[in-house]
Amino acid sequence: MAQRGTFITFEGVEGAGKTTQVQRLAAVLGPDVVRTREPGGTPIAERIRDIFLTSDGITIMTELLLLAAARAQHVDEVIRPALEANQIVICDRFTDATVAYQGSRGGIDLELIHHLNRVATGGLTPDLTFILDLSPEIGLQRQQTGETHRDRLDREPLERHRKVREGYLSAAKADPDRVKLIDAAQSPDAVHAAILTEYQKYLSQ
Amino acid sequence: MAQRGTFITFEGVEGAGKTTQVQRLAAVLGPDVVRTREPGGTPIAERIRDIFLTSDGITIMTELLLLAAARAQHVDEVIRPALEANQIVICDRFTDATVAYQGSRGGIDLELIHHLNRVATGGLTPDLTFILDLSPEIGLQRQQTGETHRDRLDREPLERHRKVREGYLSAAKADPDRVKLIDAAQSPDAVHAAILTEYQKYLSQ
Repeated sequence: MAQRGTFITFEGVEGAGKTTQVQRLAAVLGPDVVRTREPGGTPIAERIRDIFLTSDGITIMTELLLLAAARAQHVDEVIRPALEANQIVICDRFTDATVAYQGSRGGIDLELIHHLNRVATGGLTPDLTFILDLSPEIGLQRQQTGETHRDRLDREPLERHRKVREGYLSAAKADPDRVKLIDAAQSPDAVHAAILTEYQKYLSQ
Repeated sequence: MAQRGTFITFEGVEGAGKTTQVQRLAAVLGPDVVRTREPGGTPIAERIRDIFLTSDGITIMTELLLLAAARAQHVDEVIRPALEANQIVICDRFTDATVAYQGSRGGIDLELIHHLNRVATGGLTPDLTFILDLSPEIGLQRQQTGETHRDRLDREPLERHRKVREGYLSAAKADPDRVKLIDAAQSPDAVHAAILTEYQKYLSQ
């Protein structure tokens, strides 16, 4: 690909503070940053998100394929055009979430997950990924005391939340140049500072 | 798989008379027949169908992945349980439609299409498939004079309808034991008779 903008993704379990940290990094990076999220980010993909989050009885394979469908539309319509226009894109969840949620939590073969990620993105990968790592116990506690809406996935048993975390840890291990693990049990200020430090390292590469 | 019911699919361009012929065959086969359709056939898959049919600007890859998602849910929730309960299942459109619409019409590589079909169906294939073959000119003419609702795909240029037909013809050629080509320019009675003849041949195998 020709010279282009920077593609940054945030990952982590619910309650890890992704929304706050996306906002704070975006504020530092300036007004031209494109903030988006998955599943979603375009009208078609947001309709898919709604099915994904509200359908009890959905199979894990249907989850995987719906997410890939939403991602294909999102990359084509939003992310790739922004990067080609030399913008910074910050996306709340992307391909590593599929490894964690449908792979580690859902038990789908990682080879199939990586293949569908490639199909959906056309080979586009993030330049830099922050995984806000948090024990699921703390994450769920924060949710219950906070104002976050709890969806179908949030209500799953603790064991499945543990699997999600394991999946994220393995994703970080598999690609340490791109994926930075941030301790999200720290204060929001400390998390933000850790993210800025990693971002500066990335820029100075 | 253990002994199970019979899985019959109907394929063809809009206006080919699939709805009528599905009804007539089902009436012959008796009250225990499960009639269903794709995309759709379950509440989750019908929601996906609605996105599929009403979203202008959807990419061809999103189409393909959405259809696979709907199919995974449909096979798991409806088709496989019915076959395991020894029922006859008649489905209006299935995997050959993906070859015709997203492959031949949409230009997606057939290897990817076959792979996603296998992923979505878990390897389940129809026992018998009727392609109601019709020139797109006649199909579109029937639609315009009939009461059929015209959706996003029906409004596409004639050239794309021709590609769909070519895709169906190639699917029939690739698997002649399973796929039976029926001349849908004939009267409904003649089409029904041709279908019954092929069904008898299938039973006597």
